[in-house]
Amino acid sequence: MTLSIAHLGPPGTYAEQASIFYANWLTKNTGMEAILCPYPSIVQTLQAVAQGQVQLAIVPVENSIEGSVTMTMDALWQLDSLQIELALIMPIVHALISCSASLDEVKTVYSHPQALAQCQGWLERFLANVQLIPSNSTTEALQLLKQDLTVAAIASSRAAQLYNLPILASGINDYPENCTRFWVVSNSKAKAFAHLSSTSNSHTSLAFSVPSNVPGALLKPLQIFAQLGINLSRIESRPTKRSLGEYLFFIDLEADTTTSKMQSALAELSTYTEILKIFGSYNILRITI
Amino acid sequence: MTLSIAHLGPPGTYAEQASIFYANWLTKNTGMEAILCPYPSIVQTLQAVAQGQVQLAIVPVENSIEGSVTMTMDALWQLDSLQIELALIMPIVHALISCSASLDEVKTVYSHPQALAQCQGWLERFLANVQLIPSNSTTEALQLLKQDLTVAAIASSRAAQLYNLPILASGINDYPENCTRFWVVSNSKAKAFAHLSSTSNSHTSLAFSVPSNVPGALLKPLQIFAQLGINLSRIESRPTKRSLGEYLFFIDLEADTTTSKMQSALAELSTYTEILKIFGSYNILRITI
Repeated sequence: MTLSIAHLGPPGTYAEQASIFYANWLTKNTGMEAILCPYPSIVQTLQAVAQGQVQLAIVPVENSIEGSVTMTMDALWQLDSLQIELALIMPIVHALISCSASLDEVKTVYSHPQALAQCQGWLERFLANVQLIPSNSTTEALQLLKQDLTVAAIASSRAAQLYNLPILASGINDYPENCTRFWVVSNSKAKAFAHLSSTSNSHTSLAFSVPSNVPGALLKPLQIFAQLGINLSRIESRPTKRSLGEYLFFIDLEADTTTSKMQSALAELSTYTEILKIFGSYNILRITI
Repeated sequence: MTLSIAHLGPPGTYAEQASIFYANWLTKNTGMEAILCPYPSIVQTLQAVAQGQVQLAIVPVENSIEGSVTMTMDALWQLDSLQIELALIMPIVHALISCSASLDEVKTVYSHPQALAQCQGWLERFLANVQLIPSNSTTEALQLLKQDLTVAAIASSRAAQLYNLPILASGINDYPENCTRFWVVSNSKAKAFAHLSSTSNSHTSLAFSVPSNVPGALLKPLQIFAQLGINLSRIESRPTKRSLGEYLFFIDLEADTTTSKMQSALAELSTYTEILKIFGSYNILRITI
């Protein structure tokens, strides 16, 4: 059986690197082969799974420096039948890639807004007067580099190798502890991955909206988990898009949905929420590069 | 006395529109004149106040569709001596601006990532095959339009007027209830605005970090406010940038710091937090356009 995995492209992105790691891990542990399918945006990557064009998607959720990838959260809330199978945590090391002979010749730097933000201190120190141009992915602008020697891009050193481009500076991220968490997402209707699921999972992710204008509406849900001794590893708010000041809450919990403690917590939670979506339980796999 | 107000430029941005509204309001209510100073990024806008180059900055905090403006929150946490004087809420109506004769001729659309995201449904329906290019502000790309008829930009209809450019489509935001909240920020060391402060304020904003690896660390702060009947109007998490899974929390409360209830809440809060920053109390002004 060959699995198809959607990720943000073009080739050479960090999402592709996470997908390659996962594909190898899959082959080693289950014998299954995987093919990778690059998509031009994160939303299209998740739509491909929701519509059944591919079986899995690997999408960034959160970076330790720049925080949530909001389009992943919004798409997960809006699209139906998406289920998280696994989390991947990958260290991120950025390089400045350019065909120019030295930093002095660089006039423009392209990259994904998250990567530009993760290197802003370095850029202010060494390239204070260049123009920074956000692009859809870290690798989108690499094709421009051979035509124009004054252009540079921030991407992984793996991307430089792949496109046969020189590295002007490496390890340029402002914080050494830079890593990104990805989710491996399947279509819950397909049920193709029941055999992949492990018997116990360390984390559960869910999101909910609460009735508007109820004071302390978030407190009750948090109390339910605290009273049962279930730890929250993350809480994030997103606008409902109905009216300023109305939010959805995304929560990651350190527990498996199948435990009786979680079953009763979720039952109680649903009495306080307007819409409650449970995205599934999963384990975390750390990627070494 | 003439006040200098920093905002995201070039001229024609929504931040400039909010700044003009505020400057007129100021003249009408206090007789003070204001001059506007456009800066190339939100961070530089806030740095200008922190370093005393200008007296006020007007920065976007949150949009009802796309959520928090994370660079505003990060800069507010990192820079010292910033104080919120007032919140402004402005309705946002986007237009597609281009010199091309019809939608069929448009090949590329530029705008700020928040504006592109706020119009993504419209873009998929009417301009499915164009290239979307994020820029630093809604108005940055307007200068390209006269040279290249296949280029369009998303900005306000006011920006189209200002640059004398034609509007191809207006009201193209996906949600009609689109509005952005701005903060008017001063330097707390300057004390220049004590005479502007009203005797009672409706909201207070603060942010804090909690000691790492303490389960339920967020619950206690929320309980303090709930027990005193102080309503939270917003809660947002941002990474500490130290390690994945460590967060700062930004909270907006419906109360004035000067009330005795808030004084005791803040005193109790400080016993549970690692770093606590209080950005000030303020009222909300709604902008009509």
